[in-house]
Amino acid sequence: MVKAGGYANRLAWVDLANKKVDYQELDEDVARKYLGGRGLGVKLVYDKVKPGTDPFSPDNILVIAVGPLTGTLTPMSGRICSITKSPLTGGVTDSHAGGWAGAALKWSGFDAIILQNKSDKPVYLVAKDGKVTFEDASQLWGKDLFTTTRMLRDKYGDARELTKLGSTGVQVYAIGPAGENLCREACIGHDAGRFSGRGGTGAVMGSKKVKALVIMGEEKNIPKPANPEKFEEARRTALKHITESPVTSPGKGGLSVYGTSVLVNTVNELGAFPTRNAKQVQFEFAYFISGENQRGTILRETPTCHACPVHCKRLTEVTDGKYKYKSEGVEYETCWSLGAMVGVGHIEGAGYLNYLANYYGLDTISLGVTLATACEATEKGYIPEAEGVKFGDVDKLAEFIKKIALREGIGNLFAEGGYRAAQALGDVDLSITVKKQGIPAYDPRGLRGFIIGYATSNRGACHLRGYTPASEIMGIPYKTDPLALEGKVDLTIMLQNMFAALDSLDICKFSSFAYTVEDYAALLSGMTGWDVSPEEFMKIGERVWNLERYFNQLNGFDRKDDMLPKRLVVEPPTSGPAKGWRLGWDTFNKLLDEYYEKRGWTKDGKVPEKKLRELGII
Amino acid sequence: MVKAGGYANRLAWVDLANKKVDYQELDEDVARKYLGGRGLGVKLVYDKVKPGTDPFSPDNILVIAVGPLTGTLTPMSGRICSITKSPLTGGVTDSHAGGWAGAALKWSGFDAIILQNKSDKPVYLVAKDGKVTFEDASQLWGKDLFTTTRMLRDKYGDARELTKLGSTGVQVYAIGPAGENLCREACIGHDAGRFSGRGGTGAVMGSKKVKALVIMGEEKNIPKPANPEKFEEARRTALKHITESPVTSPGKGGLSVYGTSVLVNTVNELGAFPTRNAKQVQFEFAYFISGENQRGTILRETPTCHACPVHCKRLTEVTDGKYKYKSEGVEYETCWSLGAMVGVGHIEGAGYLNYLANYYGLDTISLGVTLATACEATEKGYIPEAEGVKFGDVDKLAEFIKKIALREGIGNLFAEGGYRAAQALGDVDLSITVKKQGIPAYDPRGLRGFIIGYATSNRGACHLRGYTPASEIMGIPYKTDPLALEGKVDLTIMLQNMFAALDSLDICKFSSFAYTVEDYAALLSGMTGWDVSPEEFMKIGERVWNLERYFNQLNGFDRKDDMLPKRLVVEPPTSGPAKGWRLGWDTFNKLLDEYYEKRGWTKDGKVPEKKLRELGII
Repeated sequence: MVKAGGYANRLAWVDLANKKVDYQELDEDVARKYLGGRGLGVKLVYDKVKPGTDPFSPDNILVIAVGPLTGTLTPMSGRICSITKSPLTGGVTDSHAGGWAGAALKWSGFDAIILQNKSDKPVYLVAKDGKVTFEDASQLWGKDLFTTTRMLRDKYGDARELTKLGSTGVQVYAIGPAGENLCREACIGHDAGRFSGRGGTGAVMGSKKVKALVIMGEEKNIPKPANPEKFEEARRTALKHITESPVTSPGKGGLSVYGTSVLVNTVNELGAFPTRNAKQVQFEFAYFISGENQRGTILRETPTCHACPVHCKRLTEVTDGKYKYKSEGVEYETCWSLGAMVGVGHIEGAGYLNYLANYYGLDTISLGVTLATACEATEKGYIPEAEGVKFGDVDKLAEFIKKIALREGIGNLFAEGGYRAAQALGDVDLSITVKKQGIPAYDPRGLRGFIIGYATSNRGACHLRGYTPASEIMGIPYKTDPLALEGKVDLTIMLQNMFAALDSLDICKFSSFAYTVEDYAALLSGMTGWDVSPEEFMKIGERVWNLERYFNQLNGFDRKDDMLPKRLVVEPPTSGPAKGWRLGWDTFNKLLDEYYEKRGWTKDGKVPEKKLRELGII
Repeated sequence: MVKAGGYANRLAWVDLANKKVDYQELDEDVARKYLGGRGLGVKLVYDKVKPGTDPFSPDNILVIAVGPLTGTLTPMSGRICSITKSPLTGGVTDSHAGGWAGAALKWSGFDAIILQNKSDKPVYLVAKDGKVTFEDASQLWGKDLFTTTRMLRDKYGDARELTKLGSTGVQVYAIGPAGENLCREACIGHDAGRFSGRGGTGAVMGSKKVKALVIMGEEKNIPKPANPEKFEEARRTALKHITESPVTSPGKGGLSVYGTSVLVNTVNELGAFPTRNAKQVQFEFAYFISGENQRGTILRETPTCHACPVHCKRLTEVTDGKYKYKSEGVEYETCWSLGAMVGVGHIEGAGYLNYLANYYGLDTISLGVTLATACEATEKGYIPEAEGVKFGDVDKLAEFIKKIALREGIGNLFAEGGYRAAQALGDVDLSITVKKQGIPAYDPRGLRGFIIGYATSNRGACHLRGYTPASEIMGIPYKTDPLALEGKVDLTIMLQNMFAALDSLDICKFSSFAYTVEDYAALLSGMTGWDVSPEEFMKIGERVWNLERYFNQLNGFDRKDDMLPKRLVVEPPTSGPAKGWRLGWDTFNKLLDEYYEKRGWTKDGKVPEKKLRELGII
């Protein structure tokens, strides 16, 4: 395994209670089995966090990691991730963000920084040149993500800036007030614009009294490929694939021109755009929150991430009026979660709510689903109107977000997440969640790969575990009918394994719209000097998936947790291609049986010892 | 009376049949009695157009006029107007536009150009240096207003440009396809951004086969004040008043910062914002079409008019997507007419419909009211759904606008205006009009000055005849309660007279938010050398008002035409400050009695000979 500069593959074990850091070199065996990023993080959480540990206890750990390809010349390799035992789901979670923090972490000499125990006072950490140091964060505690980021960038900004060759500048990976207040849907924000959103990683960071990680990368630590020729060939091939893809092609592909929210109109037409807490599957104002309309009205810039020619990011701005803001976004998921799902059909309104989520440090997806639950609960009279919130009412929604982030009034209940709030209000079916985590922007009644995809996702409802719409909408890697059930289990398992490996590299998932499995294996081999076949690459993914499942299992998870929210199973869509269609529990259970069998698991969804041994997990 | 350059006060009588122009100097007696602009135009229409004349017959005339203050250094003096017998109402109409066309006409040496008879082939006219010439318009006929304007500016653009001292550049005052097709709600557009909108003046221009008037003004013809000292003092006072007004103050006042659409939120809160064909009086999406939101999202520039520091104009743009456009607007009236009135709660949608209206040359106010009639007629089943149109559906509304402008399918019926269409469909109450002209953006149930204001307006429903909200909202010239009926007749009569005089000057009506009657009289006196008292100024307004009324009377108008649409009289608002209140016909008729009495008219609303003699009309 090649070293990146002097400190490559270094892990920093940060003891927050005793303000000590132990450095350790990553074991090559572990690296080849789990790569880095998600895989490494899950392995460390599995090794260190005993079953039954409260996610907010000092005994939980928060792993901030990158992978063997992060920060290299691999196109789209600018990812950072956080892995921990989730305070939202109770299982293991990993959550990734783009930008430059990933590259910076690698260039500062680290593959992972592991937060252990808990500080008595607010601190922030600085990672630079193979060292992690502690700093007093009392001036930052309570500050929003924009201010926090600005203050830290200003303080360390005399370092060489991003645009100067040989440095990643000052990168900030921090929490907002929501994380400090242990909101179970709090995220970690990188430069207040890219987010490790899901699973409540921000709340775990908050529980450890860590406000931020400041990362400064330097040229001397840039990873150099073990096999430069092989790597360069693989890199060129990957770049060619990006350029040729109708999705990612720079300046031409939908993702490049309109950002992720290019999907709004397509998914809405497919009748798979959950609207007003998924009571509908099509939103009458979808166009107005779409990437096309966003580009025409409030788009100001299209920033990008480390080594990425796609530029799918958006910077939008409303320069005046009640919803004045400037922020990255509005991403597809957020156009939906803080748009259609809460009945907001104005891009300036959804943009403003997105800004507030970023300001307080809340995962926009989970937040939107939680707000939708609150809206329906208000409609149904479970919450008094004066305290409640209303579909489509941007002002009330904005107020409710603040209440959640600061745990004010009824916000204190919803800060526990929509599932726990609905449970407390006595009607858990108001919560459109799997494993207590809100669904993302695809309704499995219209895009049916996600029926089994959502239900079996180890981190709770998720589109990024196995992105079946790639097949159903774009025909990648092969075309399937969005409304078909047949073949979706195989597709899901293949994608779940592939994405688990990909998250361990750790590079952007959008690469999968262009790269082949061969590309990933070749890039990894070129960089590390290992000879990783496509089959081994996929096996790594299967290993990570099964380890996650096993960790959850040790924490009490089984078949009962692989459930879709009732609405998606029993309520037929009222419009769109799937109008009138009802999944039903029987069909759902048959799909689950098929999935368990193909995974080699027991009928109640447990990973047998045989499987764990086969994959070298135990 | 002072001459502006060599040709001041010149009238050009353009015989379109024989392609001859007669020039005449304006009689000083007529000028002192009617000033110019609206007053002069009405006088000429009264003199030349016999009762019973079909507005589309060659015997109708179209007067394009400016007034004694237009194009001078008087702040806000950039107005041009068209006066004719309206094909929409059948009475006399005048309609004003801002920009530079007014100044240009004055600087080209004219106070009025009068189009007589009808050309056999499409022509356009060029006014320059005291001469009007005819040009072949066959290349322009059928072209939209943007293209027409661009082609003509390109052709004559080698003349000195606007920004060069001593020239007004090339100003275009033209009609679009709607005017050519005799749509009764067609307007005349100045530079495709400012419009003589109301009353169908564009259709009269189209009936005469005149596509455009190209105007080039020159320094040597700039009007010089007869009494420079008096004029300069009056000008400074007026400018001071503009600067001190919280409405007009440059860069500070609401009109300057947010444009006319600053009114959206205020009027909506007052429950006076007719929504979905006035079925409601408040629009749930008002904020999103307001000036505040417009400024924050799609505003690109704030252009202005000749000699105006207020800059209330907006240039907005949607740069991509389905509703891509660039156009002036969206003015308050249009935010409403192509927004709330048709159920469109997205500024990019309303902006796009505004652009289409400007493209085809349709009055946005009348068009919106006509579309709202079509939407309700579709809802009620009077129009088959496939041919009809739907509240809030931007795509269908856009399609319907095209059908109207090009008289395609059902558009042929609605090109006659909403009133005639509703009449043909058998339910005239679907048309929210007075004298067949659509109401503007104020619901008289919430702003009650307009009860009598709309009903008695000589040109049909209109907010610009006597702007009572100035008193009800801004306290100008004194504060009245929006919901009070008492005192509104006196206020209306005073404002109707004042605005008639003001339209004859011809300067911008927004000046009345800052200027006093004394200011107008002083500016007029300083410019002309006459000694016009405030009383004489107001008397001129009363004269113009009565002459209009008398012209209409000769064409069959009386009390029966001073009617509000039924909905506004009998249906109580469902929300807002006036919720549940019903005007009723009795109260309405009492107000009308009071108005007639105070006007010195008969009980059936006729102007008696005595009044005509008293005002020197006959």
